[in-house]
Formats: sequence, C-alpha cells, structure tokens
Amino acid sequence: MTPEQFRAHGKQVIDWLADYMEQVESYPVQSRVEPGDIRAQLPSHPPAAGEPFEAIMEDVQQLIMPGVTHWQSPHFYAYFPANNSPPSILGELVSAGLGVQGMLWSTSPACTELETHMLDWLVEMLDLPAAFRSDRAGGGVIQDTASSASLCALIAARERATRGAIRRSGASQPLTAYVSTDAHLSIEKAMIIAGLGSENLRRVGDGVIDPSALAAAVSRDRSEGRTPFFVTSTLGATSRGLFDDLTAVGEVCREHQLWHHVDAAMAGTAAICPEFRGIHAGLATANSYCFNPHKWMFVNFDCDCFYVDDRQALVSALSILPEYLRNQASESGQVIDYRDWQIPLGRRFRALKLWFVIRTFGVEGIQNRVREHVAAADLLRSRIEESDEFELLQPSYLNLVCFRHHGGDEFNQQLLDRLNAAGRMFLTHTRVDDRLTLRMSIGQTNTTAAHVEQAWRWIVEMSQQEEMSQQE
Amino acid sequence: MTPEQFRAHGKQVIDWLADYMEQVESYPVQSRVEPGDIRAQLPSHPPAAGEPFEAIMEDVQQLIMPGVTHWQSPHFYAYFPANNSPPSILGELVSAGLGVQGMLWSTSPACTELETHMLDWLVEMLDLPAAFRSDRAGGGVIQDTASSASLCALIAARERATRGAIRRSGASQPLTAYVSTDAHLSIEKAMIIAGLGSENLRRVGDGVIDPSALAAAVSRDRSEGRTPFFVTSTLGATSRGLFDDLTAVGEVCREHQLWHHVDAAMAGTAAICPEFRGIHAGLATANSYCFNPHKWMFVNFDCDCFYVDDRQALVSALSILPEYLRNQASESGQVIDYRDWQIPLGRRFRALKLWFVIRTFGVEGIQNRVREHVAAADLLRSRIEESDEFELLQPSYLNLVCFRHHGGDEFNQQLLDRLNAAGRMFLTHTRVDDRLTLRMSIGQTNTTAAHVEQAWRWIVEMSQQEEMSQQE
Repeated sequence: MTPEQFRAHGKQVIDWLADYMEQVESYPVQSRVEPGDIRAQLPSHPPAAGEPFEAIMEDVQQLIMPGVTHWQSPHFYAYFPANNSPPSILGELVSAGLGVQGMLWSTSPACTELETHMLDWLVEMLDLPAAFRSDRAGGGVIQDTASSASLCALIAARERATRGAIRRSGASQPLTAYVSTDAHLSIEKAMIIAGLGSENLRRVGDGVIDPSALAAAVSRDRSEGRTPFFVTSTLGATSRGLFDDLTAVGEVCREHQLWHHVDAAMAGTAAICPEFRGIHAGLATANSYCFNPHKWMFVNFDCDCFYVDDRQALVSALSILPEYLRNQASESGQVIDYRDWQIPLGRRFRALKLWFVIRTFGVEGIQNRVREHVAAADLLRSRIEESDEFELLQPSYLNLVCFRHHGGDEFNQQLLDRLNAAGRMFLTHTRVDDRLTLRMSIGQTNTTAAHVEQAWRWIVEMSQQEEMSQQE
Repeated sequence: MTPEQFRAHGKQVIDWLADYMEQVESYPVQSRVEPGDIRAQLPSHPPAAGEPFEAIMEDVQQLIMPGVTHWQSPHFYAYFPANNSPPSILGELVSAGLGVQGMLWSTSPACTELETHMLDWLVEMLDLPAAFRSDRAGGGVIQDTASSASLCALIAARERATRGAIRRSGASQPLTAYVSTDAHLSIEKAMIIAGLGSENLRRVGDGVIDPSALAAAVSRDRSEGRTPFFVTSTLGATSRGLFDDLTAVGEVCREHQLWHHVDAAMAGTAAICPEFRGIHAGLATANSYCFNPHKWMFVNFDCDCFYVDDRQALVSALSILPEYLRNQASESGQVIDYRDWQIPLGRRFRALKLWFVIRTFGVEGIQNRVREHVAAADLLRSRIEESDEFELLQPSYLNLVCFRHHGGDEFNQQLLDRLNAAGRMFLTHTRVDDRLTLRMSIGQTNTTAAHVEQAWRWIVEMSQQEEMSQQE
C-alpha cells in the first residue's frame, strides 16, 4: 500500500469508524457468537498474494463485527469501562503513523518529554501530592495497565525493603504484603510474578483494610521472622467500589516503614472534579499511585498513569544497561529513560493520545462528563431506593452501582442473563456476602442520564417478565 | 469532537500522515533537540477549555516533530527496527476506534479468536513446530514485547520446576537460569522481576551458548543444591546478531529437564522465507518461542508473538479468577482467556493489525521485502569486505551488519557521531572484544539496496572527512 493508497483507504476507515460511532447503539452490546464461530469463517491458510483493502474492510464488517462486544456503546455497563473518544483515537493514529519507539530519551525525545509533561499536568488536574511531580524526587510514567503499575510498585518496594539484596540474590526470606479482600487480583498476581508467593499476601479487612488488623498482622509477621514490606490501598475497588482509608492505612505504613501503594485505577479520574477530591484524602502518605485514563478519562486502552514519590527506588530496581543502549544523553543524567520505569524495554508514544484528549476536551470538558456520569449513577441509585423489588448495596460511591432484586440469587442470575441476551445493554455481576449482586459501571464516554433511565426501565421490565415466567 | 467532526479531522490526520510518509527522508533521522527543549515549549498548565483540533495538529508539527527520531525513515539503521506499514497503521486505527478490551473471550470473542487464528497462520508462515498450534497442547498469544514474553516463559518454567510451590510460597531455593553473554537484557531483568536474582543467571558461553559449558554449569548448580530450570537460546542477538545452536542446547535441556525458551525477537521473521529457515533448526526442542512482527514484519509496535508447547503450564502459573470475571464461556473450557497468558489483565485488539498486514502484503509480499533487506545487507557486507579502511565483524547473518574502521575506538566513535549529526542516517554501536563496533540494522519497511548503497557512500565520505580532520 503506497502513501497515496493509504490516503484513500485511510479516509475510508475514518468514514467507517465515524459511521460506527453514529450507529453503535444499533448493535447488540454483548456479542452473541458461540465459541469457534469467528474462526470457522476465517480461511485456514494465509493468502500467498496480497488482497485488496476493500476485501479486508468488508470482512471486518461481515466476519469480525458479529464477534465484537461493544465497549463503546453508551449501554455498556459491564466490568469497568475502557472508554475512548475521537481525539484519543486520532492520537493513537498519529502514534502508530510516526512509529516511534521511546525506550530511551534519545530514541525520540518528544516521546519522553511529552509524557513527563502530561503526567505533571495530571498532578495538577487531579490535585495529587507534589511529591509525584517530575521536578521533585518522584515522577510519573504511562504503563499499559494498573496491573503492570502495581507490579512495578511492588518490585521497587521489595528492592527498598531488602536494600537491593533481592535483585542480586533472589528472595531468601518471606516478604509479606497486605490488602483488603476487595483489592484487585493484580496485587496477588504481582506477588506471584515477583516470586514472593500468594500465601504471603495477607487480607486484612473485609471489603476495606482494617488498620488495626493491618498493624496486628504486620507485627505478627515481623515477630515470626517475616519481612512486611508493601500495602496496597484501593480506591474504588472493582467488585463493589469500596474505598480504603488512606490516612489510617498510611499511618500504619509510616510506623512500620512499609511501602504504601494506592490503586485508583477506575476512581482516580473523579478527582478532576474538586467536589470528588475527598477520595484522595491521605494520598500524601502514598509512595506510589496509579489511575487509568483508559478507564474513565476518554483515552483509549492502554493508558495507565503511574506515579512514584522516589523515582530512584524504581529505576534502581529495574535498570540494566547493556552497551548497545549506551548514549550521551543517558550518561549526562539530564534525561529520563522510561525503559527503566517499566517491565518491557520498548514503548510507544502514548502521551500523544493523553495530550489530544486533554486539549480537545479541556479540563472543564472532562469535568463535565465525569459529573454527568456520577449524576447518572446517583439517579440510578435513587430509582433503586424508590423501588420495592430492588435493593441498593451500601455504601455506593461515584459511578459504580451494585444492586439486587429481592428474588434471590437464581432470580438475579436469570435477570442478568435475560438483560444481556436482549442485547440492548450489558452488565455484569459480583458476589457480596455470598449473594449474587448486579453491577452497573457508568463510564462510557457517551453515556448520559437518559441512557441510564432507559436502562433502568429495561431492568424493571425484564424483572417483571422474569417474575411472570417463574409463576408460569 | 462529534462523529462528524471526527470524520473531518480524521481525514486531515490521514493526509498529514500520508504527507509524512512521502517526506520522511527530508527530516534529520535522529532528533537534534537537547534535553528539556520540547518541554520548554509546552504550556505549564493544562487548558481549562477545549481547543480546536487544528491547533493541536499545528503543535504536533511545530513542537513535537523536532523531537521525533524517525524510526520510519528508510535510513534508520539504529538498534533494531520497529517498522510499520500503511495497513498496520489502519489496523491499529480500527482497534482504537472499536475500543475493545479483550481480557476474556467473552469480552469480545473476535479479539481472541482472530488472535489465535493469526498465531496459527504464523506457525504455518514461519514453519514453526506444530506443537505451537492451538489445536495441539500449545498455542500462541500477542504480547507487547519479547521482554514480557520471556518473563512469562520464565514464570511458567519456574512454576513447572517447583511443581507450583513457588506460586504459593515464593522462592525458597535458588533457581538457576542460563544464557550466553549476548542474550538480551530482558532475561536478566526477568530473573530480577521474578525474584530469582541476577546472580542466579549464568552466562555459559561468549557470544553463543557453549553446550558443554551449559551442561557443566547445570551439573555444578545441581550438585551444590540449586535448581536449574531455564535456558534462553537467542536467535540473532541484539549486540552482533549471533545464533545459538538450538539442537545442541535443546539436547542439554532435555537431558536435564530444563525449560528451553527461544528468543528470536528480530531474526524470527526471516523464517518466512524458506531459504532462511535454517535459523530455526532444532526449534522442536523449544518449550517456548517468541518473535516480534513489530520489528521486521511491518506491524507497528507493539506486537510480539509468543508461543508455548504447553498452554496449561502458562495458564496455571498466571491465572487468578475473581468472581467479577466469572462467565459461562470460561467455565465451559471451550475458550481461551488471554488474560491468563500475560502479565497485565486488559488487552487491546492487536490481531487486527497482524491480519491487515498479512492480507495486504500476502505471504509473498512479506517474503519479498525480507529478501530485499537481506540482499541489501549482503551488499553492504561485500562493500565492507572490499574496503581497505573497514572490516566486517564475523560471522554476520541476515540483516544486521557490524563493522569498524581500522582507525580504532576513538575514530569509530567520531565517525558515528559525525554520521548521526549529519542527520541523513542513524546508526548505533556495540562493543565486541572490548572494541567499539558500528551496527547497521537493515529492516525499515522501505529500506532498499539503493538506500544502503547511499548510506555506504556517506560512511566512506565521512570517514575520509574524519581522517582529514585528524591530520589537521
């Protein structure tokens, strides 16, 4: 494909995507295909000769789209959102077109410097602690996901706790970490990946961390010869959206010299609105923090923003310098080489999409959308509270709403399946106190209160149908 | 930005990128900015209100482009390539626009099934062992980089060697791994991340693995109470492009029950041409393998293809299932959930760009480009061999050419700096036998023999200038 052909085909793809944005609500939100359906329609062997681009786009429409679950439908309420927006898509396009690999400052200075700059902008936008700014000892970096950010935090913490011994010799003593029951699976996965063992992750608190249980567990571990080193507080946990008390947890961390990591993957974005900044109370106690613009800030996946208050701890844990990467800029000490802030070596120019989104929306534009989402969730909460058939799980914050029908687990499961099968909306479940609970996460870019009102009507309607079908 | 505005702005971006592709050779290949130059031009604070898209694209041109090193210039010979192509860029665009997050089969079945299908196509295209096919016990997955793939391989190997104990309890006994001196830094980094310690990585061979040194080291470690578990063979190592003998290494691995991982990040693509498939001789001994279409197969970063011969070993090492991710499809056992094959939880729809590239080029189209690159490297090798001033580092395979001027380290450093400062080409260095050695990696999509001939004329010309400047 020549640049001239790219010019033509690229515009066809742009038109196709603009059409998709306009028509996204006409698709069933959750794909209806069965396992193997997509592959069954694809040729068993790759083509020997090149094919015309039109044939490929025709196949995208005919073969791929039936297997797509529409994360960008305003009626996508499942899991957490991974929202996008037109400027973000164009930022990703520019990044793909420039094809820059920013492992070192010197391999594309703009890739590194725009990233540092955007991460500093976000400190201001979310009113994060100044310690996370790059002109202090800390700094921010874009990771693919909060899972990777948390793993990096844990590795830096492990390095500090063992004074570098683990980097050289491996884990020789049990190192213990602490979370609530509701912390994200990625913390346990990080303990496993880091060779520290899932058994050495303690759950100190049902839902949220109990600071006195944390302190007791730390003391017990220490007295039994283990080395407590790491606590992850969660803001807006995946299952039911609970928030740890950063101040109380931070106090225990300070007392016992534990690394305090804060995972605000979903909820962090809310802090762009001054009225929601209370979620970050106590964040000054954190050694590291992450949130995902790819969840709720209109930046397409992947874009997690990860901050540390001491970049040397991270770099000393992760840096290795072979001859073929040596360069004057790195040796001058004047630049950041982000390869030392992450698991992989290579990296793309993801700061572009952040920059495109922040500038196109403006801070106020992002604030307005976030407020609309929270207002829509508040509306849903009030509908549920007014209802005789449903109950709201308490407490319930921001844009995640958990609720259940009084009919019991099987009824709720049937209702969930019926709603998703109808295709007009997609939501998922969790279990709380061993009871099946429905979750609606309200954060797709174009979701409005009107969408949520409509979704509530469908929920009520389908629950009535389910009641009738059970009475038959 | 509305869909209609996206339609207009998107076409502007497409035109801008098409212009960039046409004009890429007019830029200095390596950016000339100094540390801080880019940030100094960016506003200190984010904008409160949204800005017009035209202003953003104007700033991309004026503020960002001077800080871009042009990885997509045909005169980019530095490091290894991270090449792209028009269909790949459009595949990434469709992926960003659909905004699918494919952590589970059920979160977008097409994302998983197209990926599995492409990875099976590539087994055929590269004539890889059938054990890596998804209809056997193995299978393939897209990772961001070979670093992450190697880390996953190491974790699966560790799990198998300890029969799961390390996942539960952490590392309690020294586990040892083996590579040559020239293996990629990511293997040492994986040992560190995995909590096994850099000291437990043994370098058994200068340049390439010495199979008898490997066997001796394994026996010694075992007799001293350590547990040997993992060997990485490298095909086309970064520094000087050496190839390990997979058959000989594999024989030691078989005898000592070590996991044999093969890192062919750069060189693997060559196997698409039957005449280069010798690089994979002995690959049937591998438990895992990776290569990067984002290096030399015209798929924009990131896209590493990672294969295992036993997917259960990988999944059992990395899977954690919280309630909120439970779904019927996963529980049926009929589907792949790629979240269990990687470090992060979330993932984008990267199979699209692979599909777009393979179909647009066709297998023959990819073969032709790869052949052209190797032929251009062969041409360069013959020019160097004919030269009285330069010598070729031996052996020299495929598309990486290492060479040096007879003038010594300082002369070569000056020549390198002079060539890169001139801006017409960009190459980097390594050290071999403690001598500074220049590297030319020939793999940008549009690099032809004519480019390499031109580059060689510049090298000769600049070396003559350097000689004259030293005589003055």
